Amino acid sequence: MAVTPSSVSLETLDLDPAFALHRGGKLEVRSTVPVRDADDLSLAYTPGVARVCTAIADTPELVNDYTWVSNVVAVVSDGTAVLGLGDIGPAAAMPVMEGKALLFKQFANVDAVPICLDCTGIEELVETVVRLAPSFGGINLEDISAPRCFEVEARLRDLLDIPVFHDDQHGTAIVVLAALRNAARLTGRSLGELRAVVAGAGASGVAVSRILLNAGIGDIAVADSKGMIHADRDDLNPVKRALAADTNRTGFTGSTEQALAGADVFIGLSGSTVTEAAIASMAADSIVFALSNPTPEVQPEVARRHARVVATGRSDFPNQINNVLAFPGVFRGALDVRASTITENMKVAAAEALAAVVGDDLSEDYVIPGPFDARVATAVIAAVSEQARADGVARR
Amino acid sequence: MAVTPSSVSLETLDLDPAFALHRGGKLEVRSTVPVRDADDLSLAYTPGVARVCTAIADTPELVNDYTWVSNVVAVVSDGTAVLGLGDIGPAAAMPVMEGKALLFKQFANVDAVPICLDCTGIEELVETVVRLAPSFGGINLEDISAPRCFEVEARLRDLLDIPVFHDDQHGTAIVVLAALRNAARLTGRSLGELRAVVAGAGASGVAVSRILLNAGIGDIAVADSKGMIHADRDDLNPVKRALAADTNRTGFTGSTEQALAGADVFIGLSGSTVTEAAIASMAADSIVFALSNPTPEVQPEVARRHARVVATGRSDFPNQINNVLAFPGVFRGALDVRASTITENMKVAAAEALAAVVGDDLSEDYVIPGPFDARVATAVIAAVSEQARADGVARR
Repeated sequence: MAVTPSSVSLETLDLDPAFALHRGGKLEVRSTVPVRDADDLSLAYTPGVARVCTAIADTPELVNDYTWVSNVVAVVSDGTAVLGLGDIGPAAAMPVMEGKALLFKQFANVDAVPICLDCTGIEELVETVVRLAPSFGGINLEDISAPRCFEVEARLRDLLDIPVFHDDQHGTAIVVLAALRNAARLTGRSLGELRAVVAGAGASGVAVSRILLNAGIGDIAVADSKGMIHADRDDLNPVKRALAADTNRTGFTGSTEQALAGADVFIGLSGSTVTEAAIASMAADSIVFALSNPTPEVQPEVARRHARVVATGRSDFPNQINNVLAFPGVFRGALDVRASTITENMKVAAAEALAAVVGDDLSEDYVIPGPFDARVATAVIAAVSEQARADGVARR
Repeated sequence: MAVTPSSVSLETLDLDPAFALHRGGKLEVRSTVPVRDADDLSLAYTPGVARVCTAIADTPELVNDYTWVSNVVAVVSDGTAVLGLGDIGPAAAMPVMEGKALLFKQFANVDAVPICLDCTGIEELVETVVRLAPSFGGINLEDISAPRCFEVEARLRDLLDIPVFHDDQHGTAIVVLAALRNAARLTGRSLGELRAVVAGAGASGVAVSRILLNAGIGDIAVADSKGMIHADRDDLNPVKRALAADTNRTGFTGSTEQALAGADVFIGLSGSTVTEAAIASMAADSIVFALSNPTPEVQPEVARRHARVVATGRSDFPNQINNVLAFPGVFRGALDVRASTITENMKVAAAEALAAVVGDDLSEDYVIPGPFDARVATAVIAAVSEQARADGVARR
């Protein structure tokens, strides 16, 4: 039952430092030009602004040069899959979207505006974002539940000529690929030699599986909440059916834990748990990414008894798989060259650049840089911009 | 014909100081909280943010305390009636909406986000803004063509429990009422003694007429592009038909210039012109507000030969009727008390507070304060907040 407002004391809530920090919100909009007097006003607003409007009406591309549009990303959510909290609605999703916006600014100087939408139908979400699109240089989709998120993103990518990027999918996928490349390098193997088990076939599970297939991983078996995904299952949505065709070459139908026997890589994105025995049954030099938050699929200190490399989604253990390593630089790199889209190659290039930051410092506890490593954004931005040019999607 | 991008030199455009100032846009989004290290990140983002989300999901009102929503206004346009430029579309409208947003911040510390929508149907506009509403504490509608603007605003006011304010209507109306109150005071008359002629029955003409009727003006005759509005005309849209019932008591059917004979007040909001002879035919101590921009209906130096008080929309003449005197303070005052709407009383209170700033300095050339007078926002904010409480629409 909802607590009535009168029974909630802000002073009590503010004893929690997270609440105290959130009081009044985390963002503001500021002017980047001076408005000190009537002369300034006559340039920034009427009558001067009319000449700029007329120029854009004549030459639409000028909107990118003379407004903030080409630097501003909408962080769009419908609040249906917020963190691990589920469908809590657009208002309750706002603190996450504000947080995302401040990370965009902090890590890559991208202006971002949180847009929490009061609609959940695919049709409504797509048409609303299309209507909003003239105001933004890119669309970061966030915390939209699977499988709706796949169609929403695919349709928006078709309809819009600006970058559309569902971070829960591709941000996670980029960082996982980067960390896995480095873990493979550490253990002297190529991606093609690795057999992986992915627990979870939601937004991140599907995208991680796809980017790993794209990068040439040996084989992947993916499990959803009903068990291993294979071609004989008749309860698969179209996205999982496509995944069944491309994964699980041996047609394994057992449990996730059974699948781990002899596997090289475990990637947990499901919120489920995995026993120590299952981790122990993996191949030598195994790699365990237990990414569910706040509770990893297996405690890292337990996994570390058997696995060579362990990563989590948490900041209090080594090797944090954190999307903030990807999305700010990916958008900055795309916006800098006014990319019309974010290609698969651009995502792989971002992962490679991110992996390369680790360089010779590579170790079991350092397969991925930390979020405050200033080299990360620089490397990702450059790689994404360059790949956009190579892919012919850059517009300057 | 549209100029191709390659034929447009930004360097040449930037020789115009308005273009130079607009280069790269006029706004940015900034964080208001520190994110220096992993501890900060764990409060502003995961895992700390999850506790704030959960609290809002349980107690929706907390969104106003723990996000920026209650301080942020969407400046929404479809680009159909931008300044005097007409229907130039959403992208070309962006410089105006950015300008509006910076004025919100500069004059009343309201964060504002320009939202230019790629849709023009009334239904689509209304449903899009309703879907966006969870992200904002107020909606400032801007540069939406008449008569669509009336229905869009009315429906949004019905559907939403946050302030919805079409500035082209009500911002202008508030400032005109304030200036007219002072002009009447200067000339020793009450509003009830005045007979006014309003040229223009678009967004601002209708709203100005309505607020003056509300404030008790003696009589108004309103003209649209076809001539004087009266009950016998069969070409009136519903808004004008309602106006015909409440105005033009004598049923005058002549021209605007003929209507001016003996009138006390002329308010031009039409872009048309009025002859010197017509101005000369007005009553003694006449009041002329020639508000079309950049070309007033009559040049102020010409009007001044016959009228006691002359105002324009321009900053280079005395008595500038500038919406910036109203909208920042109106929204700040409404947001401060979390008003569910902006009532007619709140608009009139804003006008009275604005008029009162002039005080004993009242003169023919000073019936309205200048835009950089710091007393304006303070006075308008206090009046609007107080009136919201009196009207029972304040929520704190």
